[in-house]
Amino acid sequence: MDHLDVPQFLGLLVVMLGAAKLLGALAQRFGQPAVLGELVAGVLLGMSVGGLVDPKNEVLHVLAELGVVILLFEIGLETDLRKLLQVGGSSAVVAIVGVVLPFALGYAVCWMLGLGNLVGIVAGASLTATSVGITARVLTDLNRLQEPESQIILGAAIIDDVVGLVILAVVSGLTQGAEVTVFGVAKTTAIAFGFLVVTLLFGRLVVPPLIRWISQGASPGTPTILAIMLALGFAWLASVAGSAMIIGAFAAGLLLCGSQHAHDIEKGVANLGHFFVPLFFVVVGAAVDVRVLNPVDPANWQTLEVGGLLIVAAVVGKFLAGYAPFWFKGNKKVIGVGMIPRGEVGLIFAQMGLASGAFDSGLFSAVTLMVMVTTFIAPPLLKMLFPPNRPEQKSPETQGIAELVTEA
Amino acid sequence: MDHLDVPQFLGLLVVMLGAAKLLGALAQRFGQPAVLGELVAGVLLGMSVGGLVDPKNEVLHVLAELGVVILLFEIGLETDLRKLLQVGGSSAVVAIVGVVLPFALGYAVCWMLGLGNLVGIVAGASLTATSVGITARVLTDLNRLQEPESQIILGAAIIDDVVGLVILAVVSGLTQGAEVTVFGVAKTTAIAFGFLVVTLLFGRLVVPPLIRWISQGASPGTPTILAIMLALGFAWLASVAGSAMIIGAFAAGLLLCGSQHAHDIEKGVANLGHFFVPLFFVVVGAAVDVRVLNPVDPANWQTLEVGGLLIVAAVVGKFLAGYAPFWFKGNKKVIGVGMIPRGEVGLIFAQMGLASGAFDSGLFSAVTLMVMVTTFIAPPLLKMLFPPNRPEQKSPETQGIAELVTEA
Repeated sequence: MDHLDVPQFLGLLVVMLGAAKLLGALAQRFGQPAVLGELVAGVLLGMSVGGLVDPKNEVLHVLAELGVVILLFEIGLETDLRKLLQVGGSSAVVAIVGVVLPFALGYAVCWMLGLGNLVGIVAGASLTATSVGITARVLTDLNRLQEPESQIILGAAIIDDVVGLVILAVVSGLTQGAEVTVFGVAKTTAIAFGFLVVTLLFGRLVVPPLIRWISQGASPGTPTILAIMLALGFAWLASVAGSAMIIGAFAAGLLLCGSQHAHDIEKGVANLGHFFVPLFFVVVGAAVDVRVLNPVDPANWQTLEVGGLLIVAAVVGKFLAGYAPFWFKGNKKVIGVGMIPRGEVGLIFAQMGLASGAFDSGLFSAVTLMVMVTTFIAPPLLKMLFPPNRPEQKSPETQGIAELVTEA
Repeated sequence: MDHLDVPQFLGLLVVMLGAAKLLGALAQRFGQPAVLGELVAGVLLGMSVGGLVDPKNEVLHVLAELGVVILLFEIGLETDLRKLLQVGGSSAVVAIVGVVLPFALGYAVCWMLGLGNLVGIVAGASLTATSVGITARVLTDLNRLQEPESQIILGAAIIDDVVGLVILAVVSGLTQGAEVTVFGVAKTTAIAFGFLVVTLLFGRLVVPPLIRWISQGASPGTPTILAIMLALGFAWLASVAGSAMIIGAFAAGLLLCGSQHAHDIEKGVANLGHFFVPLFFVVVGAAVDVRVLNPVDPANWQTLEVGGLLIVAAVVGKFLAGYAPFWFKGNKKVIGVGMIPRGEVGLIFAQMGLASGAFDSGLFSAVTLMVMVTTFIAPPLLKMLFPPNRPEQKSPETQGIAELVTEA
């Protein structure tokens, strides 16, 4: 009946979880965040090395998306909206500069190499969006999610994601030869931000009392499952409203942060997170094709050249954006580095460039290379600039999803 | 890239979980086990009514299978192997009589109606296997999993599942016109039981110390995720060894029952269970086509006649099997009723009969009807004969996955 062998698929999940756990622990042993190991596990199991994990597999794709939705929900659960709004100005400036600068640099690189206008736009666009999942996970691994630097990064990454959606809509229109109107762009922008504002204003009044009411006298797991339903439901609504799933999930978390059942929910959702979140990072890692890195093959030379220049543009652009909120007294380097990883969002642009014919396979690989390198350098750099909080300084109850960095 | 719309799929999961929770709570309000409400939720969302949940959808199918694997793992975690072996003789007798009697009665029904030899064999076979998932869940809902009756049912249902696999292999060979040898049947039987014995003997020595060793100083979620990996891994191994996934998962649970981290694992796995298990029952319910029940349509008359007789055979056969261990002093009615639900296993036989051409669509529907009715009558009957334990009698810590039957 099914062409998928279910027992074998369960075996694959065991291999994915086992590799993620093992290499995550190994990364920690070498003083790196666990997520780096999970990404490496994905690369090793992916199509270009182990050939076990195909990120295009529909079931894996859904499980991975559940993973990133649950991750952003967990991050939202630990994020105090007031703290986020306090640094809102800084976040907005970081986000805007962090979109404009990398785009301009990326476009300039392509112009320098004589690659044409549309190529420059798509390549520039692929440099704009920050992968909030990876940075948020690293900050969690470092037990630093509550610092002002982290709050600025988180806010900027969320704004970035919304802006990224608008750019995606515009660029997707351009690659299909459609006319792009100012009104259309404004509408997409308004819907994307409007969703966040409306859900937070309206939801804040309705959701916590509703969960309290339903959970009265219900079975022990009820608050957790209601919270998960809220996260998935908001992810769906956000997407219907023209925003991104992870923004909906993050908003759902923000709504429940500090509510009566927040502690139970955090613990319950963490157990689902331990299962789903590593699957997301393994699937992200599996999308990396390491064969483009082989410098012996002359076919890779142009890719490596373009990719190298795009990496410089990507790193410099986001790093300088960290200095944009000049009034902020904290560690500006941390902010810039936190914005570096591009993750899956950059890959979507690369895919779009390839599908539309604007990119050839060499340019596609160059953008892939940029995504891969920015994703992999950010965790160790962030760790270096932002040493982990000693777990002893916090009581185990307040750590939430923070995985202790065991260095013993 | 994908033909599945992921945000919409997350929305579907919200609807499925919401309907399951709502109707589960409603069932409890009417004094019924929650699983009955979850099955009804599935029927309402299924293709013959709401048209939302397609049990053939690959992603839903995998999530549902994860649900039943996790459920059986949870049941295994709460099952003391020594207690199970103490009633092993009774379980074996119940299982054997509960296979032979329904098969004979089902075959007789088809012979009476002049439906031919192969039809009788496939229809009889579809009456043999007990759906351990439904019964185990009802016993959990009733907070009765630790009673001797429950242990006998559980043991017999597990043996039944192994025997069912052997029958499946034989019947599948027969429907494909293959020769069935005594040696082949003996081999399938030996492998299926052998897997259980070997894993339990060998695993008991190796697994608990291994988990203790890996969990030393690791992050808080580690024992749970290791346990889940063990459950999925054993499900896969069981299938590779020619046994059923749920038997592997149950064996994994048995291995960890009473181990050092058992309490943490139970709580952690319960959170995954709250998400996955209702999805399983909704998908089982969604496979029911209620249109065959319409008595106004003459096309359904033969289906209703054959189905009605098969229901009698199914109920009488298993009920009498409950009296087979004549030496057992407890409530024999409970045992018989506990063996009644056929669930998904009966549907597999029906599917096989249809695919091989032995069944026409009327016979297929008749077996479906039998599965549907036996699945739906068992929970309320069991509840009547085996009133729920008052939750007050146990401290909340020892209840594990038992969902409190809230009657207030």
